Amino acid sequence: MTTWLDTVAGIVGPRHLITDPDTLAAACLDWRGRYRGRAQAIARPGSTAEVAALVRACVAAGAPIVPQGGNTSHCGAATPDDSGRALIIQLHRMQALRAVDADNNTLTAEAGCTLAQVQDAAAGVGRLFPLSLASEGSCQIGGNLATNAGGVAVLRYGPMRELTLGLEAVLPDGSVLDSLSGLRKNNTGYDLKQLLIGAEGTLGIITAATLKLFPAPEATATALVEVSNPADALALLHALQARFGDRLTAFELISGLCLQLLARHLPDARPPFMPPWCVLLELNDGGSEAVLNQALAEALCALRPQADAVLARHARERAQLWTLREQISEAQKRDGPSIKHDIAVPLSQLAGFIERADAALQQAFPACRVVCFGHVGDGNLHYNVSYTRPGNVDLFDDEPAVNALVYDLVYAHGGTLSAEHGIGQLKRDWLRRYLPPANLAAMRAVKQALDPLGLMNPGKVL
Amino acid sequence: MTTWLDTVAGIVGPRHLITDPDTLAAACLDWRGRYRGRAQAIARPGSTAEVAALVRACVAAGAPIVPQGGNTSHCGAATPDDSGRALIIQLHRMQALRAVDADNNTLTAEAGCTLAQVQDAAAGVGRLFPLSLASEGSCQIGGNLATNAGGVAVLRYGPMRELTLGLEAVLPDGSVLDSLSGLRKNNTGYDLKQLLIGAEGTLGIITAATLKLFPAPEATATALVEVSNPADALALLHALQARFGDRLTAFELISGLCLQLLARHLPDARPPFMPPWCVLLELNDGGSEAVLNQALAEALCALRPQADAVLARHARERAQLWTLREQISEAQKRDGPSIKHDIAVPLSQLAGFIERADAALQQAFPACRVVCFGHVGDGNLHYNVSYTRPGNVDLFDDEPAVNALVYDLVYAHGGTLSAEHGIGQLKRDWLRRYLPPANLAAMRAVKQALDPLGLMNPGKVL
Repeated sequence: MTTWLDTVAGIVGPRHLITDPDTLAAACLDWRGRYRGRAQAIARPGSTAEVAALVRACVAAGAPIVPQGGNTSHCGAATPDDSGRALIIQLHRMQALRAVDADNNTLTAEAGCTLAQVQDAAAGVGRLFPLSLASEGSCQIGGNLATNAGGVAVLRYGPMRELTLGLEAVLPDGSVLDSLSGLRKNNTGYDLKQLLIGAEGTLGIITAATLKLFPAPEATATALVEVSNPADALALLHALQARFGDRLTAFELISGLCLQLLARHLPDARPPFMPPWCVLLELNDGGSEAVLNQALAEALCALRPQADAVLARHARERAQLWTLREQISEAQKRDGPSIKHDIAVPLSQLAGFIERADAALQQAFPACRVVCFGHVGDGNLHYNVSYTRPGNVDLFDDEPAVNALVYDLVYAHGGTLSAEHGIGQLKRDWLRRYLPPANLAAMRAVKQALDPLGLMNPGKVL
Repeated sequence: MTTWLDTVAGIVGPRHLITDPDTLAAACLDWRGRYRGRAQAIARPGSTAEVAALVRACVAAGAPIVPQGGNTSHCGAATPDDSGRALIIQLHRMQALRAVDADNNTLTAEAGCTLAQVQDAAAGVGRLFPLSLASEGSCQIGGNLATNAGGVAVLRYGPMRELTLGLEAVLPDGSVLDSLSGLRKNNTGYDLKQLLIGAEGTLGIITAATLKLFPAPEATATALVEVSNPADALALLHALQARFGDRLTAFELISGLCLQLLARHLPDARPPFMPPWCVLLELNDGGSEAVLNQALAEALCALRPQADAVLARHARERAQLWTLREQISEAQKRDGPSIKHDIAVPLSQLAGFIERADAALQQAFPACRVVCFGHVGDGNLHYNVSYTRPGNVDLFDDEPAVNALVYDLVYAHGGTLSAEHGIGQLKRDWLRRYLPPANLAAMRAVKQALDPLGLMNPGKVL
């Protein structure tokens, strides 16, 4: 008798149907180790046609489908539930660069390409693909799209949604949505690719995308600048944007406590000064780097004549400054566990939110520590809380109370509980608390229309 | 007995229910005069709650709903069909600016605001709202959103979709989707506002939006530059983008025939030279205008030392150069009717497309004239054909043949038959010819899920 898995093996070839328990166990555990699910098998298709055939086979068998890229979700979005019936579809064999069109400033990549491969392909033709994440060596374009990934360059270039011109995806009925297009203007009906982007695999499996490229910057200027508080950081942001427009590509806020943790735990990441707050900012431009550095120095002297500031003189100093920003998570990890929040508020609300949230947490948990840093140019903060109790013991027992306090204030300030990490399994119940019922009902109607059997990455988002 | 229209009058007030035949006739005729429909009445709601109540009343009565903003669609998207059963909902009483948040670079406007009102509100707080269209004095934000409007500044700022952070809309069941948000990063489930944007009122009625603002440019530099052909124009575009990045805000291609028509029909719009092709380009920046002009002059001398070029020395000369671009349509109108195409192709395909389409048209219609101009930085061409027969008689008898020839070539070059004007009634049948069946099926599934009765702007898009 032919079983359902025989059909799957016939589609991808027996070598690409994996039932080995160790490999299966690894694919069923999320990156942060918070979720462990179960699955029947892993299939590794080599083409869009194979993905479509797999989806049709799953529909015929009533088997849930869990698409998986680099498995680096922070929210358990790529981890199956514990029904044990799911087929995990891993995309990493699909890593063709179908087209690199420098004259159109576009590139068409299959979903299994890592972000780093796409960055390299762009650089190979003198272009920039600006998305940049800590996990870029292992995260895949399909996952970047499914979660509408962000990162440090959103300030200028926007998130993954704004970097995407075209998309190919297998829909829950096994049909192939072909919206691969390198057009910057195209008004021909509903923009369905927007539904797939950010849907975390619940509306279909993204198999390829046409992405925007940009001229590779010829000049870079990087500075670390003291500011007195978040409101002062915002004033500096607006002044620099008025002067430099989109040449300002990064503007990262770092609190004094972040610098103290760096100094304490990571002796190689030495902050050059110890202000209450600082920003790490970067300009990119065509033309001469000396001219750009000079323009930034003049602007900072005019705007913040009294502030401590360091301008990178060469690539090594630039890397040292960025190490400060990039090592904050590691420094905090060495300091102990923390309750993490990936939140955003409108820029005009940012200083008020931080002040009120800090005060409310201090009142509820007098000894708590807040490690606050992030992509403040987008209003996006990583706002992490620890030491709710002496010695940081039983921290996660306080997680529901801490989340409720933080998220209530986030929404009171017009913000969001997920700026760039998505919902996955982690924030599903919280989303229901804050999203208006009509919005949830419309989402469910769309899900029901495209995935009436509910087989596509069940238990995520909705 | 209470009729259905009594209910409508009760919702908006009798003064705002219009059944006067002249007003009704004007609302039933599209801007270009190609479509004349019929309707029962016009309702002019004053709030989102009234729009929602109107939609529920129409659902109860089974009456089709036609949302109408400034009624400036080029495709008949706001004109009812001839059933005579529709209620036209005009939004122009809803023109509150609910919030202007300069610190967040956002503004929340109701759908009935004209584009010019939004531009002015942004300028009032020292900011720029960059969307700019010929009809900006009368077109409304709701219509700009429903058609994902474009214009000359898309090169830097993107179309309406990319300028929109939040949206409020009444869905076809009368519920209110509340996604008004001023956040640049927000990953909390399906981004439903993207469905409403560009759906031309077929999935709901947009009632308000939160829009991105930008620092107002402090310096502008404008030039008209001779190029030898479209390929040469693209090479110049890439060189200028490498040097100036997003400071290059406009890059418009104009053919020699456009300049000849201007000289012949509009003596006030005098082209300074008569090249085979030219581009009108503009840079914006913070800082000194003299510095920016100098930088542009140096770049043009280095890149095109032999080319004729004019740099505007002051605002009056800048306006004169822009008049050339803006008066092309008028000059062509005086030259007689034409078959218009609003197409886009990838930039890398642009020169090849123009060459092949020109040749194919010349072969099919030896005496035809092609007036070709447009936002070439986005690959968007207005490609207008006249004189298919001697004396330009019976031109529109050739429209199906000309469209088929042009659109077949557009799609062969990876392009689109509607770059920025949308589908409406005008291009519905053509869309079915070129869109993949799976895409059409998915669009229909979404339409069916949100508007199962099919009452929302029927006969448009799908």
